[in-house]
Amino acid sequence: MIPTITAFADSPDQGAGQARDMRVRWALEEVGQPYDVRLVSFAEMKQPKHLALHPFGQIPTYEEGDLGLFESGSIVLHIAQQHPGLLPEDRAARARAITWMFAALSTIEPPILDREAAEFFENDKPWYAERMEGVEGRIRTRLAALAGRLGDADWLDGAFSAGDLVLVGVLRRLKGSALLAAHPNLIAYVARAEARPAFRRAFAAQLAVFTDAHATA
Amino acid sequence: MIPTITAFADSPDQGAGQARDMRVRWALEEVGQPYDVRLVSFAEMKQPKHLALHPFGQIPTYEEGDLGLFESGSIVLHIAQQHPGLLPEDRAARARAITWMFAALSTIEPPILDREAAEFFENDKPWYAERMEGVEGRIRTRLAALAGRLGDADWLDGAFSAGDLVLVGVLRRLKGSALLAAHPNLIAYVARAEARPAFRRAFAAQLAVFTDAHATA
Repeated sequence: MIPTITAFADSPDQGAGQARDMRVRWALEEVGQPYDVRLVSFAEMKQPKHLALHPFGQIPTYEEGDLGLFESGSIVLHIAQQHPGLLPEDRAARARAITWMFAALSTIEPPILDREAAEFFENDKPWYAERMEGVEGRIRTRLAALAGRLGDADWLDGAFSAGDLVLVGVLRRLKGSALLAAHPNLIAYVARAEARPAFRRAFAAQLAVFTDAHATA
Repeated sequence: MIPTITAFADSPDQGAGQARDMRVRWALEEVGQPYDVRLVSFAEMKQPKHLALHPFGQIPTYEEGDLGLFESGSIVLHIAQQHPGLLPEDRAARARAITWMFAALSTIEPPILDREAAEFFENDKPWYAERMEGVEGRIRTRLAALAGRLGDADWLDGAFSAGDLVLVGVLRRLKGSALLAAHPNLIAYVARAEARPAFRRAFAAQLAVFTDAHATA
């Protein structure tokens, strides 16, 4: 059965691949599962039909027959559990890979989202610089710990896993920032992930939504 | 095999059960799995021995033979996958329960943590009230969507699951706030969870760490 995911009809980042459908597309490409995409506008996301699928009115969602899921982390885990390739077979290694998915989403991403919210909502405030210093300090603490743990390894824990996929999705939010540039091993880690054929196919597919829309505009 | 978890030697909330070991204790109690607890001080959490187990120097951790895990969400999921009682057997219902775990941690908890960080780091700033208004607005949006989805149901999706457990752990951070009080069904939902015998046992166990330490002080 071909699953259907949702993505933004109008890419807020002009195809930079920061929206969370990118993580789901990438996981589907890694396991070789074809998928359909339904594009939704910002207005449609807040309508009852979409809210029935996603109570918080966001993307991505995932539909497979009667099953409807939301939350990119949960969707990536579901894909990884249905197909070989994104989680180790060994029970302990599998639990550790899933731990990195949660670490990416609950420990590393929140201060990064906080920085984005500050850039968006507070950049005209007189206290913006002072507050941003605190937010970036919390990101620095997380990245230093992460860089120390990764060291010279290619991936977090043996072979590439869903943990790496979700974590790279989070770190890509900092692309071009001094925060990430302070850790050459993290820069190399993200580049290594972005060089994977599955990443490239997923990135091209989400970019095409943006370029096609603008080609006909 | 009896697993060992870590918890704060010095409860920062004086036994209110807001630290994340509470979620793990509760999950272990729900499935009837005995466990040992190793208490760690704030200084010990930043030492190499603990950092080898938890790269970000926090609690809880979970050790079971050679397996070492961190992140409360991942630990609760691991427990729920090893024992019956916290995840439905039906494949689709199981994926939906896991989706709620991720929603609790990645969509609902971040603005709540942001509010706590503001209370801690910014409460002496002249712009505190203005910023808190924005933070609380983002929490209100999430709670309204959640309250609408829960409606009059006892639990999120059929029987009590690991999704409810993690979400209640997140909502308890707002206990006593006007944000939560605005939604009587969410207040009742949290109270219903707190009345579960497994919750009560877990709460008493974490409280005893605090009261015992102070009885001998």
